[in-house]
Amino acid sequence: MIHGGERFVGELRALSARLLMQRGAPYDAAQLQSDILIEAELRGLPSHGLLRLPRLLLRLERGLADPHTSGTAVWTRPALMKVNGDAGLGPVVMMAAIRQLGQIVPKHGIAVAAIRDANHIGMLAYYAEAAARMGFASIVMSTSEALVHPYGGTQAMLGTNPIAVGIPTADEPFILDLATSHVPMGKIHHHALRGEAIPEGWAVDREGRPTTDAEAAKTGALAPFGGAKGYGLGLAVELLVAALAGSAFAPEVTGTLDDDQAATKGDLIILIDPAAGRGEGRRLSAFLQRVRTSRPSEPGRTVAVPGDGARSRRAGSLATGIELPDEIMERLAAFDAA
Amino acid sequence: MIHGGERFVGELRALSARLLMQRGAPYDAAQLQSDILIEAELRGLPSHGLLRLPRLLLRLERGLADPHTSGTAVWTRPALMKVNGDAGLGPVVMMAAIRQLGQIVPKHGIAVAAIRDANHIGMLAYYAEAAARMGFASIVMSTSEALVHPYGGTQAMLGTNPIAVGIPTADEPFILDLATSHVPMGKIHHHALRGEAIPEGWAVDREGRPTTDAEAAKTGALAPFGGAKGYGLGLAVELLVAALAGSAFAPEVTGTLDDDQAATKGDLIILIDPAAGRGEGRRLSAFLQRVRTSRPSEPGRTVAVPGDGARSRRAGSLATGIELPDEIMERLAAFDAA
Repeated sequence: MIHGGERFVGELRALSARLLMQRGAPYDAAQLQSDILIEAELRGLPSHGLLRLPRLLLRLERGLADPHTSGTAVWTRPALMKVNGDAGLGPVVMMAAIRQLGQIVPKHGIAVAAIRDANHIGMLAYYAEAAARMGFASIVMSTSEALVHPYGGTQAMLGTNPIAVGIPTADEPFILDLATSHVPMGKIHHHALRGEAIPEGWAVDREGRPTTDAEAAKTGALAPFGGAKGYGLGLAVELLVAALAGSAFAPEVTGTLDDDQAATKGDLIILIDPAAGRGEGRRLSAFLQRVRTSRPSEPGRTVAVPGDGARSRRAGSLATGIELPDEIMERLAAFDAA
Repeated sequence: MIHGGERFVGELRALSARLLMQRGAPYDAAQLQSDILIEAELRGLPSHGLLRLPRLLLRLERGLADPHTSGTAVWTRPALMKVNGDAGLGPVVMMAAIRQLGQIVPKHGIAVAAIRDANHIGMLAYYAEAAARMGFASIVMSTSEALVHPYGGTQAMLGTNPIAVGIPTADEPFILDLATSHVPMGKIHHHALRGEAIPEGWAVDREGRPTTDAEAAKTGALAPFGGAKGYGLGLAVELLVAALAGSAFAPEVTGTLDDDQAATKGDLIILIDPAAGRGEGRRLSAFLQRVRTSRPSEPGRTVAVPGDGARSRRAGSLATGIELPDEIMERLAAFDAA
């Protein structure tokens, strides 16, 4: 299951792009969509990696994903863009929105894009990093199918509703990317596949009973992270995205976990020009270094800053290769032959 | 310790305003500052209530708080305002910023104010509610003295760095207001005062050892909420505010817990005009009602939405009065005589 080295990463990237192009994706769109899937694999986030490619290929074949569009953008105000994703590929619609925001953020200081009906945008860190490379701070949010129960509730009412925050510094940007569920549904599936129990507090079953049975949790609901606070944040994402994008609420969202329904979730990205504030890249870098070198909870360990782990895992994956289940490789190979 | 009814609330409000005016605060500033302290009491948030008034009165007497200024605002971009708080009263500076943002948000769709060196702004929900009354969605952040240790760390490196999100609906607005620490330092002091142990996981002592001794925790550091994710959010607040406002980082912040040093923390508020998106107030209200009536974890309980508890406690306090320690009343009486 371990495949060796950077060359294999390059091969996977080429395979992914080829499969997408075979289904009508223009070269740039295929490269971009492949890049975000590969980047997730490199960082040890397989739930947002090539696992999602077969579903996407089917969605392209069935017209549920349109590889040619970057959506229809309307500036309803000089600093607020509403985008109908028009079933476009998530990364294509998002990067087009970021490029458009990027044109006006240096002028206005802040701008926002609210997107509905684009396909799955993948890991949010990708966009926070893109914004940081352009010199902008960013807040990114996305909604999804109902998987998470409210604090004090037991029904899946909310998406895993991730939030990312990116802030340029004088060296590596600060990149935070978190789902507002305690664990991702992928982790439940992983335990179910191996017949392992899940810890208490991760999920409830279909009837809303707390469970340690991973199989039962698959049809139940995930706990929010951090109790009432994480629930509140997830709900804030749900409402803010829907209010601005006009996208569906979680119980009605389709299209990111299936291969036969339209994508109806929403995404939001706010860009801010730190140069319009004070910027302070060097001061930020110095502070992050103080945090890293502050007293750890275990001697000899280093205190991590969000983004450190992903960068380190990425470097490791580039050196040693990506761990990819044979089943995914076989599915992709079948698509290649089709 | 229980005082009766709405009349007593009115008396407290008048007392607070009088004490502030005796120390030079203009009528409007005294009313506003008093209102936010009283509102915190009404919602059962005494850590942000009248407990803070004696310190503020001393800061006014010593010139560390200037009741006449609302800060110096500069629009560095058409939608980005930088404010030097000039040691103004926190609520006065914040509300002036919100009023200014409110002038341009309907035009631009989104705008942000980054504030440094204002005095303590109190509970963030107050500003999210003010923005919601104007019809705007808001994201509010504030930094503070170093009280919280990083996930994987044991030194107080971060403020309790609260975040609030306000979103207008067709009825009561959605108002989320959370500190990124697991519990507030006030709760530790409360336990210490009563000689009670604190639960494991709340705090570490001065040497960074996990502790259940509330007294030892007072000089230690608070845990972030929600593990690595809550830590990441707190750090994001720390960096975003500092990057845009140019305010101090937590270890250098002074002025919100003492009565003898300048206020050096930062605050950030983003306003968004939902009408520039789709608004969808009724759809939001209907979804929140679905969340409230979804299956609870305990039969007969109702699933709460952020803001519900505060509204309910507020109504209760208006009916039955505010619970205020005699010690605070005595301190305020002494100021009144002085």
